[in-house]
This record gives sequence, C-alpha cells and structure tokens, in this order.
Amino acid sequence: MTQEIETLIENKDFKGLKNILQDMLIPDIADTLNNIEDPATTILVYRLLPKALSAEVFSYISPDAQETIIGYLNNNELSFIIEELATDDAVDFLEEMPANIVEKVLKGATPETRKTINRYLSYKEDTAGAIMTPEFVRIKLGTTVENAFDYVRKQCKDAETINVLYVVDDKKTLKGVLTIKELLLANKEQTIDEIMTDNIVVATTDMDQEKIASIFSKYDFLALPVVDKENRIVGIVTVDDVLDVITEETTEDFEKMAAVHTSDDEPYLKTSPIKLAARRITWLGVLLITGIFTSMLINMYENTFVSISALVCLLPMLMGAGGNCGTQISTIIIRSISLKELTFKDYFKVFFKEFLVSLILGVLLGIIAFVAVTIQYQSAMLGLATALPLLLVIFIADFLGFSLPLLAKRLKLDPALIATPILTTILDCCVVFVYFNFASWILGF
Amino acid sequence: MTQEIETLIENKDFKGLKNILQDMLIPDIADTLNNIEDPATTILVYRLLPKALSAEVFSYISPDAQETIIGYLNNNELSFIIEELATDDAVDFLEEMPANIVEKVLKGATPETRKTINRYLSYKEDTAGAIMTPEFVRIKLGTTVENAFDYVRKQCKDAETINVLYVVDDKKTLKGVLTIKELLLANKEQTIDEIMTDNIVVATTDMDQEKIASIFSKYDFLALPVVDKENRIVGIVTVDDVLDVITEETTEDFEKMAAVHTSDDEPYLKTSPIKLAARRITWLGVLLITGIFTSMLINMYENTFVSISALVCLLPMLMGAGGNCGTQISTIIIRSISLKELTFKDYFKVFFKEFLVSLILGVLLGIIAFVAVTIQYQSAMLGLATALPLLLVIFIADFLGFSLPLLAKRLKLDPALIATPILTTILDCCVVFVYFNFASWILGF
Repeated sequence: MTQEIETLIENKDFKGLKNILQDMLIPDIADTLNNIEDPATTILVYRLLPKALSAEVFSYISPDAQETIIGYLNNNELSFIIEELATDDAVDFLEEMPANIVEKVLKGATPETRKTINRYLSYKEDTAGAIMTPEFVRIKLGTTVENAFDYVRKQCKDAETINVLYVVDDKKTLKGVLTIKELLLANKEQTIDEIMTDNIVVATTDMDQEKIASIFSKYDFLALPVVDKENRIVGIVTVDDVLDVITEETTEDFEKMAAVHTSDDEPYLKTSPIKLAARRITWLGVLLITGIFTSMLINMYENTFVSISALVCLLPMLMGAGGNCGTQISTIIIRSISLKELTFKDYFKVFFKEFLVSLILGVLLGIIAFVAVTIQYQSAMLGLATALPLLLVIFIADFLGFSLPLLAKRLKLDPALIATPILTTILDCCVVFVYFNFASWILGF
Repeated sequence: MTQEIETLIENKDFKGLKNILQDMLIPDIADTLNNIEDPATTILVYRLLPKALSAEVFSYISPDAQETIIGYLNNNELSFIIEELATDDAVDFLEEMPANIVEKVLKGATPETRKTINRYLSYKEDTAGAIMTPEFVRIKLGTTVENAFDYVRKQCKDAETINVLYVVDDKKTLKGVLTIKELLLANKEQTIDEIMTDNIVVATTDMDQEKIASIFSKYDFLALPVVDKENRIVGIVTVDDVLDVITEETTEDFEKMAAVHTSDDEPYLKTSPIKLAARRITWLGVLLITGIFTSMLINMYENTFVSISALVCLLPMLMGAGGNCGTQISTIIIRSISLKELTFKDYFKVFFKEFLVSLILGVLLGIIAFVAVTIQYQSAMLGLATALPLLLVIFIADFLGFSLPLLAKRLKLDPALIATPILTTILDCCVVFVYFNFASWILGF
C-alpha cells in the first residue's frame, strides 16, 4: 500500500480514494485491500470500487480479506460476485472458506452456477479438474472463418482466454484447436476444419497438476484442453494458473527436502505456531531417535576413542563432510529428475561420472584433512588415519546421494522424500563405522 | 523417441518417417532429434522436415543437436534459419555456440538481422534485455479499430504473440496496451485510444529476470513490454520464456541451498566430471576447514568427555537435531521471502511466533531425549543433562535459522546463500559449547 493511499484512508477522503482506485491495476487494488487491517475499512474501500471491477478484484485478494468482505455483503452483492467470478476462481475461493460461508454463497448463486461449482468442487485437489475453468470458446466443426469471428465475439466476454479456440463436433467431442492468430490470417471463406490443428495435446480431469505444468513447459502452450473419458472437452487450464501450480509444487519440494510436512500453501505469517510446530515435529522426532542409535554405535567404540580422543573430536567433521557431499549430489540428482533430464535408465552413466567426481573430491578433501590434522595433532599417522577414511566416506556419501533418489524414482516414490536428513542419518552410521574401524587399523589397534 | 520412429530410422524408410514427422508437434519432433545419437542420421532426419517447420523445430532442439546440424547446413539453409528464428530464440542459440559457429551464422544473416542480434547479445545475461524479443505488434495512437485489425493481420506473421498489442506515438514511446479480446469487442469506428489501457506495467532492459517472473505471477500477464530510458518500447517478454526463467531460478535456489556453485544451466548428463567436481569442491573444502575448528573446540573439553564418554557419544545426536531444526526453519523462511510473503519488517512477528514454535519443539524433543538417554545409560541425571541442552540447542537453531535469512535480505544479500551447511557449521560450534558446559554443570563437574 502506498503512502498516498494510507493518507487518504486516514483522512477518510473517499472521493480521492475512489479516483485513485479506478486508475490502479486489479492486483494492486487487491494488495491494498489485503494490507488494510481494520475489517470495517476493508469493506468501505471495497465498496468504493466500480461494480464491474469488484468481482475481479475479489478473485485476487487473500482468503482472509475475502472472508471479511463476504461477511458484510448483502445477498444481491453476493450473487453478483459469484456469478461474475470465473469458475476456477470461485472454486479456489470456496475451497478456502468455512462451511457456513460456502453455504451462504452457494445460496446466492443461480441453479446452473451452483451445479457447475459443485461439480468442480468434487474434483480431487491438485488435478486438472480442480484447476480448470469452463469459460472457453467453443466453435462447431464446419463453421466458416467469418462466422467463427462472430462466435468468438459472442463468447468472448465470459471466456478466460480467446487466444486458443476449441473446435468440437455435435457431441462436444474435441476435434481440433485453433489460435486467434490462425483465424486472423485465414480467408473469410475457409472453414475452420481446414485451418485447425487436429493433433491435440489434452489433459484428463484426473491428471496431476505437476504433469500439466511439465506439458506447458515443453509445448509453450497458453491453454490446455481438459477432456473426459469420451474425449468431450469439459474445461481448459490456462498458463496463469500453471504459474501458481509451479510455485506451489516448488514450495512442496523445498519443504520435503528440508524434512517439513508440506502444508496447504498457507503463508507463513498466517499459520499458527501449533500448526507450524506440528509440520516439523514428526521428522525432528524420527531423526532424533535415529540419532540415538548413532550414539549407541559410537558408544561401542569407547575403548578406541578413550585411547585416542582425537578420533572422537574429528568424528563430527567427517560426518559433516559426508552429509554435505550427500546433500549436494542428491539435490543435483533430484532436480535433474524433476526436470526430466535424468531417469533410472541413466543409472550407470551417473555411476561412472560420479565415480570420477568422488575421486576428485575425495582426494582433494583428503589432502586438506591430512595437512590440517597432521598440523593440529602433530601426527602424520593420525592425519593419514583421517584422510583415508574421509576418501571412503566421500565415495559412500556420493554413491548413496545419487542412488537413493534414482531408486526412489524407479520404485515410483517421490525422490524428494529421500530427503537430505534421511540420507544424512544413514551416512552418520556409515561414517562412525568406517572411521573407527579404518583408523584403529591404520593406527595399529 | 517412439518405437515406431526408431524402426523407421533403422529401416531407412525416410518416406514413412517424413509422413509421421509432418503430423507431430514441434516439441515432439525436437525430442526425436535430440535422442538420435549419430550426427549423420540427425541431419538426415532434420532435412526431411518441411522448410516452414525447420526453423521452429531448430529453436526447440538441444544446443548439442543444434551444433551438429549447423555443421552440415549450407549457407543458404543457414541464412534461412537465422532469418526465420524469433530474435530471442536466435540469441539463446548463439549464446550456447562456440565463437566460430556464431561467426558463420552471423555471416549468413542480413545486415538488419545481424544488427538486431548483436544488440541483443550485448544485454547482460538474466536481464529483461537478454530474454525479450522484438517481434511484437505495434499500433499507432489514433488508429481506428478497423484499421488496427489490418495492422494486426499484417504484423501477425512475424509476431511472437498477438494477444497483447502495443500502442505507440510517433516517437515509439509506449502509450498503452490493448488485448486482442478488447479489440474484438470494440466498435469498428472507435479509435484504439478509447479502448486501450494506459496504466501500463513495464520492465526496463536491465531488470533482473527474477523480478520479471514475479511481475508475471502477480498480474497474470501473457506478455510484458520492455522499454528503454526514454520509455520507447524495445521488446516484449512472453510468458513461455518466463516459465523457463522460473525453472532456471528454482534450480539455482536448490543448488545454493545445497552449497553447490550454480551452473549455466547445463544438464547433468552433459557436464564433465571435472566441471561437476569444480562446482562442489569450494564449499566442501570451506566446510571441511570449519569442521576442523569444531573438532578443536571439542578437543578443549577432553577432560569432560574422558570422564563421561556418553557426552561425546551423544554430541552428534544434538548436532543433528540442531542442524535439522535450523534447515527446516531456514528453508521455510527463505521460501517465504522469495514468494514475497515475508520481509525484514516482519522480523518481530516471526520472532514471537518462532519463540512459541521452538518451545513446543524443544519440550517435545527434550522429553524424547530424556526418556531414551535415561533408558540407554541408566541415568536420569544424564537424561536431564542431555534434554535441557537440547531444548536450548533447538532455541538457538531456530533463532539462527530465521534470523540469518531475514538479515541477509535486509542487507540485500541472497538469503539462499545463508545455505544450510553454513548455518549447520555455526550451529555445530554452538552445540559443542552449550552441551559440554551445560552438561558438566548439571552433572556437577
């Protein structure tokens, strides 16, 4: 919210405010409304908007502000909004609302709108059905280009996009797609059958949204048709919704890799401390318990490290090196898998490449460790007894770091779930085992 | 590549192949070409494409395949491709090629194309200038709707998009934008000045591509105009390029958080082991050296842990818990910052929220640790001497985990650079200090 608007609100200069709002872009108006803390002021400012803008602004504001505004609207205003909203925006909004508000809103809708919304609300979350919209332009097979323009003009107003037009037969089966550009370049007398593309990429209503995002990235589409089992077109997914999907999926991947339970994309500041703690405690608890097993493993080498206390001092350094190395390669591999640059078929290519990478990394790190430990403890033998196990640790860490995600992919599990901390825990045990055994052997125990 | 195509290539059935290729979508043809390993076959298949398709297919294939094909083309074919490619695709392609190929290609271009491409090649990587394209539809202020349609039809063929049209005055200054939908809905006699939007969001040529991606996400644009210092429109960025930018920036964030040097988005399988090792060694080396300092710190408590060896066995468990907790919160905070849900202004809100979160997590984990350690070592005192420091470690880890990224943001540094491993290293030292001092004090040393 700009200083100017803040001042106008403080001075209750609603006329000035109205003028400013009219010249603003919709997402900026929405930002302003989101940032007003007092509900009464929110609704006051919202009511200043021209009616034509109000529904669209509504679709951009935060669920909290939506709930506030809904509480103040009368039935007429409510039905106006729900009728004007694009179906996908209405569904998004209703999914965030408590049951009593959903009921109130649906009461205000026409039977037809209510039916459509209810159908859309029944699609499973994160599928094409849940993010598609039925507001697209349909043209019948056999229409001439000239008539097609009339159709577009007629259906234009309600359509989410007119950049892609959908050609259907009498049974609403999708027969082809056509861009507005192709229509503009064609002769008026041609039929759309001659100029449409009949090699169509489609989504099914139950297709996962991540898959849809990858189709958009590959084909550079602006919209993707969604069809039912009889190949009848039931909706389209537009690229702006795909941007939101990508953001959501990326957040999920980050959270999984940091061992956080993924949320229903609630913003951090809106989430209660109890919910935040709940999303984190499971993994922290599990990892703490595995940490206790590591400690028991270390305990078994008590005789070794009581004789040479340096070993136990250096252990966290080796664990750290292994963990960092494993995190690096698993992140690189998980990302390559999700960009479809890598599949399990490439396992041996990765194996040979990483064998060389580990060798380079292990030797270089081994040299650093040898020098540092030899200086610190005045013992070249101890330096060697640290550097050599470190080399082995790097090999193991790297091997597990690329194998686990690729194996997960092969088993149709989520590679990101082989998250850093799980990997690190397995590694910790390996490091204890390798270091204490190897070092005792070198130092002649 | 499908089985069918593979068989056709093996049988050298080029007629059959040609028929199939003609019916395929461009990105799928590109996939086929990318997957052919033999260069001679690649060029053979490429030459089967209708000329009209060949330039567009070229823009979709991998740099490796592009280089192969360029090597076989004669000068005529080469200039055809370079003239037909959209400027942004030509620039992308040339940026990946070795200097001798760039020279060869530019020689084949008309002086005008050469000038444009050279200007674009001079824009800094990752800025609007580097990803924009000059192929957009310009309409002069004052044009009637009817004439505007003629303009669109004329400029359509070369334009990257006609969904958004740009209204300029005589000096090419950007005065407004207009969607094709608005144009279709308008009366033929109106001038575009009446129907255009004059409240325009623009990018400057030097604007960072990450900023541009966030503008697209906020405003749901399909294209964004790029202007020079005199507000003259010099190009547009389209949403399909923004999808690529988001993918690239996300990969960078993942890599930074895993302490890997970010690359020039080379796919994993195409990168040499030496390059891969080089991207990882710096951080691994730095973190190994800090690990040596941690080991020196542990060494200072030799007297303590020689008396109670359990302390040193349990140390990695506490380090792990602190590290995992810090990774969780820093990931949540870094993601919220990059989604613009959080800024440094919210520091105290985060502080109070996380105080409660740490309290919940610390108490629960403390209970688990108390029970486990008490059972394992048959000593409730040792259980207490581990659980209480763990509580403190969780507080410190959480505090550093949210403070460092927010502070980095405040100092205009990259929050993702306060990567997990750096945080973990700081934490490791804290854990050693807290645990040994606290435990000795509780156990009465």
